[in-house]
Amino acid sequence: MSETNRQWLLHARPVGMVKESDFELRTSPMPKPGDGQVLVRTRWLAFEPAMRGWMVDRPNYIPPVGIGEVMRGMAVGEVVESNLDGYAPGDRVSGMLGWQEWALGDGALRKLPEGTDPRLALSVLGLTGITAYFGLLEVGQLKEGDVVVISGAAGATGSVAGQIAKRKGCRVVGIAGGAEKCSWLTDKAGFDAAIDYKNEDVGARLSELCPDGIDVFFDNVGGPILDEVLARIARGARVVICGAISRYNEEEAPPGPRNYYRIVAQRARMEGFVVIDFLARAAEAAAELTKWVAEGSIVWEADVQKGFENAPRTLQRLYTGANFGKQLLEL
Amino acid sequence: MSETNRQWLLHARPVGMVKESDFELRTSPMPKPGDGQVLVRTRWLAFEPAMRGWMVDRPNYIPPVGIGEVMRGMAVGEVVESNLDGYAPGDRVSGMLGWQEWALGDGALRKLPEGTDPRLALSVLGLTGITAYFGLLEVGQLKEGDVVVISGAAGATGSVAGQIAKRKGCRVVGIAGGAEKCSWLTDKAGFDAAIDYKNEDVGARLSELCPDGIDVFFDNVGGPILDEVLARIARGARVVICGAISRYNEEEAPPGPRNYYRIVAQRARMEGFVVIDFLARAAEAAAELTKWVAEGSIVWEADVQKGFENAPRTLQRLYTGANFGKQLLEL
Repeated sequence: MSETNRQWLLHARPVGMVKESDFELRTSPMPKPGDGQVLVRTRWLAFEPAMRGWMVDRPNYIPPVGIGEVMRGMAVGEVVESNLDGYAPGDRVSGMLGWQEWALGDGALRKLPEGTDPRLALSVLGLTGITAYFGLLEVGQLKEGDVVVISGAAGATGSVAGQIAKRKGCRVVGIAGGAEKCSWLTDKAGFDAAIDYKNEDVGARLSELCPDGIDVFFDNVGGPILDEVLARIARGARVVICGAISRYNEEEAPPGPRNYYRIVAQRARMEGFVVIDFLARAAEAAAELTKWVAEGSIVWEADVQKGFENAPRTLQRLYTGANFGKQLLEL
Repeated sequence: MSETNRQWLLHARPVGMVKESDFELRTSPMPKPGDGQVLVRTRWLAFEPAMRGWMVDRPNYIPPVGIGEVMRGMAVGEVVESNLDGYAPGDRVSGMLGWQEWALGDGALRKLPEGTDPRLALSVLGLTGITAYFGLLEVGQLKEGDVVVISGAAGATGSVAGQIAKRKGCRVVGIAGGAEKCSWLTDKAGFDAAIDYKNEDVGARLSELCPDGIDVFFDNVGGPILDEVLARIARGARVVICGAISRYNEEEAPPGPRNYYRIVAQRARMEGFVVIDFLARAAEAAAELTKWVAEGSIVWEADVQKGFENAPRTLQRLYTGANFGKQLLEL
């Protein structure tokens, strides 16, 4: 066992695009588990677009990470030492271990069933999948036959959302950046159609693909794409605001959706949510998602980077769209 | 009985602020009621901000008024001749008679109970009151104890909405333009507080008056006021989009609410509605509103202009904020 721990601390609140210098790599002594604690060796870190929001001191759904604190993040690790009943050395666990090679944990850690692929535990079967599931079904009140549009459709959450909608009998159009992601959506993930926002006129394509309007929009992006969709919502549409990656690295909030007023004539709604509120019902989602994954009827991708020292650079990939599928870092 | 009818036709689709020249005054022959029709002499015209939207050919909840057609509008009139069972000369009726001195009507006309004040029939006890009632209670899911903010609060719909919220046990803050309207809100209409957007810092005042956030926002205005409210919504807030008078005379849709993304962290929603969807339940609203009016516990104002030739100028008053209370024209 190494004698020291490496940790990425939040060094500065980012201004504009998140930079490597917003973090500081520190070497610190190995932590010692106290009573009721386990010592975990971090194996995989997971990255979410929302992490940019955790780095700044603005009103949000959780307090920001403090300057000088270990960067918050979901991870999968291996229990090395345990003073906690029910956890033994060798157990694989997932939880908010943070950006550090060694972490202390408690009963909030989730034990992974034997043989679980850690990449799946951090994506389809983790918070990502649960977000897609409840966002669509509960917030979006998805109904069979709905015309569903998903932005950030090749991303971890969007791709699961689209596949859930297909399984629920909907027509699904994904919006993603680049031909490769778009082909994957239609050829592998079973989307009915995909729009390449980097090379196509999103509005014109939406009009063509959704001539009777859009019933459910699952939005991970915001910005002009949100406006193009709002211009084409159907009567009674549900616009589920899951994220807005186009805004996260902007210092001043960009202009909002100028077409928001379409929700009046269309008796529609825009609704935001945070997955935390659905954790008590996570088992529901996990059961269905696990079944689909076991059947092989949900496809997924992970973008796996390597090396603890690359954590900040791995986070940046989310905001440039460099990743394809769930952004992970293997330690 | 005069031999001719005067009608205001839509002459041109307005560009920017609605102008008198967008209408044309025409003298035409008196209409003759056919079988199942009544001839009605128009006595009062009612004006709604939404009428600007009926004049342009853009997607909306009803088709636009055609060029050369009589301008659409709610009115109260008196039956002069009847070929329709249940309607007799002398009956007072309300309905979409349009901007004309004489109109033909059918069973869609509502007979007013004996002694009904036509100003009330066209405001608190008409579509205006029904809009406020269902917008707040159904769309806004109003609960006792909610902190409610209303924009356009001294307007016909806003003032009724605020008074309904007070009767349902809420704390109510109104936003209106000018000291006179604000005093009326607090001194006469029973609002807990009023913000004069023309002379006060709306954001600062909202922070002061709603330190724990805003549970329900009933928005008639849009624009910067919507943003100031979104910045201060409480967890689970309902933002009811009833109107957006700040936008109606703009040729290009102005930027949308840059703070829309607050609905995510606050698990809130923005929802639009059209009163038409609630007409089947109008009696529910009317019963409660009639009771409150009879008790004298709902106060209301009407801005009464006179003379049929002034219809276009009367409509303009809504967009300059010249009116105080329901905008009416007495013929």
